[in-house]
Amino acid sequence: MSSRVGANLPAVGGYNEAVILDAIRRASDGISRVELAERTGLSAQTVTNVSRRLLAGGVIREAGTVITGVGKPRTLLQLCPDGRFAIGVHLDPSVVSIVLLDLAGELLDHRVLDVDPDSTAQHTLDEIALETRAIIGAGRVLRERMLGAGIAAPGPLREESGTVLNPPLLPNWERIPVRDLLSDRVELPVLLEKDVTAAAVAEQWVADGNRENFAFVYYGTGIGFGLVLQNEVIRGASGNAGDIGGFAVGYTDASGRSRAFGESVSPTSVVSRALAAGIELATPAQRTGGFHLLDEFTALALAAERGEPQASVIIDEVIADLANSLVPVANLLDVDRFVFGGPFWAPISQRALAELRRAFAASPMLVGAHAIAFEESAVAADVAAIGAACLVLDHALSPRPARLLIAHRG
Amino acid sequence: MSSRVGANLPAVGGYNEAVILDAIRRASDGISRVELAERTGLSAQTVTNVSRRLLAGGVIREAGTVITGVGKPRTLLQLCPDGRFAIGVHLDPSVVSIVLLDLAGELLDHRVLDVDPDSTAQHTLDEIALETRAIIGAGRVLRERMLGAGIAAPGPLREESGTVLNPPLLPNWERIPVRDLLSDRVELPVLLEKDVTAAAVAEQWVADGNRENFAFVYYGTGIGFGLVLQNEVIRGASGNAGDIGGFAVGYTDASGRSRAFGESVSPTSVVSRALAAGIELATPAQRTGGFHLLDEFTALALAAERGEPQASVIIDEVIADLANSLVPVANLLDVDRFVFGGPFWAPISQRALAELRRAFAASPMLVGAHAIAFEESAVAADVAAIGAACLVLDHALSPRPARLLIAHRG
Repeated sequence: MSSRVGANLPAVGGYNEAVILDAIRRASDGISRVELAERTGLSAQTVTNVSRRLLAGGVIREAGTVITGVGKPRTLLQLCPDGRFAIGVHLDPSVVSIVLLDLAGELLDHRVLDVDPDSTAQHTLDEIALETRAIIGAGRVLRERMLGAGIAAPGPLREESGTVLNPPLLPNWERIPVRDLLSDRVELPVLLEKDVTAAAVAEQWVADGNRENFAFVYYGTGIGFGLVLQNEVIRGASGNAGDIGGFAVGYTDASGRSRAFGESVSPTSVVSRALAAGIELATPAQRTGGFHLLDEFTALALAAERGEPQASVIIDEVIADLANSLVPVANLLDVDRFVFGGPFWAPISQRALAELRRAFAASPMLVGAHAIAFEESAVAADVAAIGAACLVLDHALSPRPARLLIAHRG
Repeated sequence: MSSRVGANLPAVGGYNEAVILDAIRRASDGISRVELAERTGLSAQTVTNVSRRLLAGGVIREAGTVITGVGKPRTLLQLCPDGRFAIGVHLDPSVVSIVLLDLAGELLDHRVLDVDPDSTAQHTLDEIALETRAIIGAGRVLRERMLGAGIAAPGPLREESGTVLNPPLLPNWERIPVRDLLSDRVELPVLLEKDVTAAAVAEQWVADGNRENFAFVYYGTGIGFGLVLQNEVIRGASGNAGDIGGFAVGYTDASGRSRAFGESVSPTSVVSRALAAGIELATPAQRTGGFHLLDEFTALALAAERGEPQASVIIDEVIADLANSLVPVANLLDVDRFVFGGPFWAPISQRALAELRRAFAASPMLVGAHAIAFEESAVAADVAAIGAACLVLDHALSPRPARLLIAHRG
């Protein structure tokens, strides 16, 4: 994650505040100061002082009282969803999504910009900024309660400068310092994160537990992994973790070399193979109407669902390549869950999840001392955009061991 | 890492003690209380109280004074290497190593037991226990200063019970609860860790910085990875991270399937291929004298060094398979370093390091937004045994964010 120097996100407070806020966030029905002290291990005095500050800042609110046995009734504290807001932007080769989340992670706005692939990055950023301002202006958002914006972009990227380097599918975005360019345009602090990592962050935020060791398989125009290991989002030495470059699938191409996983399952290549095999994916009318890659891929998946043999072979090959490539990831990282999302996942989800479970159960390669779960993402809308906004909330709210060490060592 | 329930390692102290001890450990020339307070962010009072306890416990000592400008001379504090000790055991299919480390990580004893592959696990554990008692009895070790023992064993293993499950090369060790069996025999707390992970722990302990994101490639009778990401040792959901099962190399076998990486580079398979190709690896005298796999592998590597064509082809194939399999690991995890060790690494090290650097520089698959270093392990002796002992020291000494959260919340 890359945050702009000199434009730090306004963190809500120190470590104790983050711990208390996190406990309040997780107690959807509210929590009393006494319970907070018990749950966090902090002193009653600290809880009182911190909650006074959070109440004054509009981050939490008092939400009625509860009577437990003898003693005076306890006031419940609750997160104030509209106490803070964050914007998330997903920069995708074919489409830009922009979301607005409140402090509870609730999706308040979701807009989609069609991107002309020939546009310059500058022009697209102008459009993103315009839409972002419109979102902020549209509604219930007080400017001073806006924490900032996160951008999820395809890698590779350079963390220190917040630059998108040379994303294979975004030729006009080579060496573009998107973080600072957007920050200047929207006058907010901005974070830049790799799209697959942002997706994993969203999943960790939204899912209800059981997300300590998982790989998020993001199936978009490209495919990649977002990794959470030992409850930490893995960014790698340069923020570029999760790339599948070099993964071989267990089959060979005509030249006798293993096919590369990324190439074999990329929607562009899958649709090309289908068209080359003479499979009809669009009516002539659709074709002149600007039928898109996702529509063609969806048509192919539907044909497979209908049992059309050629389509089934192609889709099943994609799923088999996926299974062959996930086994080494499971063995290397000892994850106990794969979570799937991205626009191209939905059309094949049902068929793929069933087949992956079967393939893993039958794989002689799997070391596994435990079961591995396969499931669709718990995040409903554009998971990378949501993740980019969650990052901003995360940055402000969640107690992180690294931050904790700093706080402690001062 | 798996530590026996009811037989916890005697931690030296709480979080503040661990932070102070860690700072003292890193200052090899000693450090004053004033500097300690500056470096740790702890109050002068806390530093004074903690160092008093550490001095009384024999964990640190006063080591002269230093005069800095005006003011009274400052007393330097230094780690007391013989303040605590730890045993490390490496359970390998062909050989068992046992080491004794002091608190500074210094290797005080290193013994090797030849294991009869037909021995039962119980019998081998009896021998390990006997040797461990001998090491403890031999020297300068006060029983009450012995922290415990670590065992590095091939995976897969079951963390909770400290059981070795079904290691492919140790048929007599199926479902053996080695942790408790050894703990009973040596009457010490025992930790169990996967061998490759223990190797990564040793590397992190011994190396001088630059070990935040690396993969330790352990080349033993089997091959596997020990992972350190974002400065944390990665154990995975069940302590079994680092297995290479299912990695395909970029070539195919006669049946048209990709060769599996583990199989293609396993020393047994490499030596078989060499013998099948008619390469002479041992004199008849050596052969009757019990020439071992490592000797044969070394002979093959030496033949390649001398430029013998058939041997060179086989060794270069191993190195190429290794390069093809490390590229996806670098892309997936965004590590900036590969560290190599294990008994079978030494014979090919020079040739392999040079070729890996070249192959990575030339790889079209590498995403890399940064340089990747390739180097031999900084650990001189049996790296997995050293790692197993370091784990025990680590457990007692190092501030860990996870422990810190508990301390903070507890």
